[in-house]
Amino acid sequence: MSTPIRPSIEPSGIAQVLHGDRPATSVRRARAFDRWLVAHLQRIITPAAVRLELWDGSSPYDNSATAVGSVVIHDRRTLIGLALHPDLQFGESYMSGRLEVRGPLEPVVEALTRVSQPHMSWCDRVTLTLPNTLTASRRNVHGHYDLGNDFYRLWLDRHLVYTCAYYANEQMSLDEAQIAKLDLVCRKLRLCPGERVLETGCGWGALALHMARHYGVHVRACNISPEQLSFARERAAREGLADRIEFIDEDYRNVTGQYDAFVSVGMLEHVGLHHLESVADVLRRTIRPDGGRGLLHFIGRDVPCPLNPWIRRRIFPGAYTPTVAEVATHTLAPAGMSIIDIENLRLHYARTLAHWSERFALVKDRVRQSYGEEFERAWELYLAGSQAAFATGWMQLFQILFIPRGSAPPSWTRSDPYETPRVAR
Amino acid sequence: MSTPIRPSIEPSGIAQVLHGDRPATSVRRARAFDRWLVAHLQRIITPAAVRLELWDGSSPYDNSATAVGSVVIHDRRTLIGLALHPDLQFGESYMSGRLEVRGPLEPVVEALTRVSQPHMSWCDRVTLTLPNTLTASRRNVHGHYDLGNDFYRLWLDRHLVYTCAYYANEQMSLDEAQIAKLDLVCRKLRLCPGERVLETGCGWGALALHMARHYGVHVRACNISPEQLSFARERAAREGLADRIEFIDEDYRNVTGQYDAFVSVGMLEHVGLHHLESVADVLRRTIRPDGGRGLLHFIGRDVPCPLNPWIRRRIFPGAYTPTVAEVATHTLAPAGMSIIDIENLRLHYARTLAHWSERFALVKDRVRQSYGEEFERAWELYLAGSQAAFATGWMQLFQILFIPRGSAPPSWTRSDPYETPRVAR
Repeated sequence: MSTPIRPSIEPSGIAQVLHGDRPATSVRRARAFDRWLVAHLQRIITPAAVRLELWDGSSPYDNSATAVGSVVIHDRRTLIGLALHPDLQFGESYMSGRLEVRGPLEPVVEALTRVSQPHMSWCDRVTLTLPNTLTASRRNVHGHYDLGNDFYRLWLDRHLVYTCAYYANEQMSLDEAQIAKLDLVCRKLRLCPGERVLETGCGWGALALHMARHYGVHVRACNISPEQLSFARERAAREGLADRIEFIDEDYRNVTGQYDAFVSVGMLEHVGLHHLESVADVLRRTIRPDGGRGLLHFIGRDVPCPLNPWIRRRIFPGAYTPTVAEVATHTLAPAGMSIIDIENLRLHYARTLAHWSERFALVKDRVRQSYGEEFERAWELYLAGSQAAFATGWMQLFQILFIPRGSAPPSWTRSDPYETPRVAR
Repeated sequence: MSTPIRPSIEPSGIAQVLHGDRPATSVRRARAFDRWLVAHLQRIITPAAVRLELWDGSSPYDNSATAVGSVVIHDRRTLIGLALHPDLQFGESYMSGRLEVRGPLEPVVEALTRVSQPHMSWCDRVTLTLPNTLTASRRNVHGHYDLGNDFYRLWLDRHLVYTCAYYANEQMSLDEAQIAKLDLVCRKLRLCPGERVLETGCGWGALALHMARHYGVHVRACNISPEQLSFARERAAREGLADRIEFIDEDYRNVTGQYDAFVSVGMLEHVGLHHLESVADVLRRTIRPDGGRGLLHFIGRDVPCPLNPWIRRRIFPGAYTPTVAEVATHTLAPAGMSIIDIENLRLHYARTLAHWSERFALVKDRVRQSYGEEFERAWELYLAGSQAAFATGWMQLFQILFIPRGSAPPSWTRSDPYETPRVAR
């Protein structure tokens, strides 16, 4: 193609693009080729009622009154990128400011998500077989979770729980719903005072602290994010729970000992498809064969599908959101575990993300000052895109409760967890 | 092997064998070979504390005080059969009386089940790919379900529910627990008055009648057992529910129309591994895309494994008990469905079967008079063996609730089904 392509906008140029002070080149008229290409893209996304608009204001969408919002494409390079690799380029261009969304961000992303189809390309299949080595896992986790506790404190709930909350009723605040989630996990596991619990991927320690405080158990909680661990240890000491919780800097694959209960909330997504079987090894080794039980809480799928490539590049390198069938086949069956109970909390995650987005919007300027505009826009899109993914059923949130095959389930019926919360809501 | 093998006992000889009046040949002394072989079998089942005994009273088990019971092998042919193909020959020999169990049957079978390992042989894999054609399905169903309503009326609950009951509390009777199961299914599906429900494999119609009576829905219920259908139609007419239920003589693959809810209790085991995808076609066609939901209640496994070969030969030809992963992969994913909730009621089935066995024992003589001794012994073993399979975790009972991908789940949390039973227990 001989059409000259506009050079990339450097971060320093974002402010100009976003705030109207655009370089002279960006207001030049779109050519016939540009109009043809944007019309083609508009047809592909037709049911979405999202209006595409070119840098000169032209648009193939003739009914802007019904559109939930507009996507403004600022240059030809972005337009071509969107045509060639929309899943990656939408995020890249939004982040760099070469693409703008006019109107509320989440509904636009949700509308676009609804017209997408999950698929697994040849390239995805190859990429997914690449192992997350111990070193790679540390690097991946460090990149996301060690952004600084201060960053997460700006917009998470007060206990820093960075996983799907459980809105036991629809009026709950984010803080209440996170506590309700911690408690739901404990009740599903039927924790009893004095029992030993292993938690892998403990984040800032909120679940470990909740289990130790309200259920009287001894917790061994591991994580490979130093920032999170030091926060968790400080909190345990401050709250007088240090004698009941051991926070250890260890990869889940290296954990030793045998426990009454195993729990992992929001870690399975990070182990990668290739390593679901290494989780099986851990379960087989660590769960007491008679009377032990485990719970996995993770973002999953209905059909095997890699994460959006932009999310993999910018937010969660090495992550994979597995299906129930994949977890059952590669983790639970080889570990000798029986599925007792599965719950899908997809819409609870959509609501959690809506709450996070609301709170993030309030601190947007502070994030921009500390981390730069690209970072702030990337996170804004990541939160909105994730909310859209759960709202549309593109992604699921599963809690799976399991026990060693042939052992007694922790309860005769599962009704109790919903009747007797240990913690007042 | 040159040892002469005793000819097969014909059914007419069973009484002699069972009641001590054995043919003279059977009391001849066991040879060194027999004692070597039975000692070998005893070692294999060692952890089971089940005593093996030969026809002359000799046994390699030296601690009969701790044994839960004895398996008495009446002839060499049975001994060799057990060594070569235990899974099939145990049932065949028990049924024909060539093998006897002294002591309570279920604990012995349970102990033997615990020391078995589920496995899928080469031959199993081939067999499982054989399709259940429409004709074969009718033949398979006819063989089991058309034994005569009178037969099932002898020992099932009063509404003739021939699937796992739900003991909402441990004191429930079988009758109460079957009603509780019907109601649990309705509440999981959140049925509303006026809705249209499709039920495939409706048995004697108990669930269809319960849904129509207590939830005010219109039910289309299909089955391919003429005896069951005529019973169900009569009951609907007698109870004044005929205008709300249509019982149709149709294979699940041929059902048409679109419904608010789909439900199938105890049918998926009969479709065969090869036909899990044909269930997907039905779900995709019949469940309303927006707001529809479905429930599959079926006997399943933790790992892929064929049914016991004796059960396949004598009780359920063409049946296969799938794993959650198989149902998710071959039925729900291709149907475009999202898993909302899974519950494993394994121990409830063990209890249901214990209740069935108790009731069966009370009518044993009548069954023997009407259907013969082989039949009665086969059913006695089938019930005890199934109870053992659920008690040991060899088999599972799954209820899977699902919805079309991206549509709204029937409820915000799942707590309600346990709090507000529509029917007094």
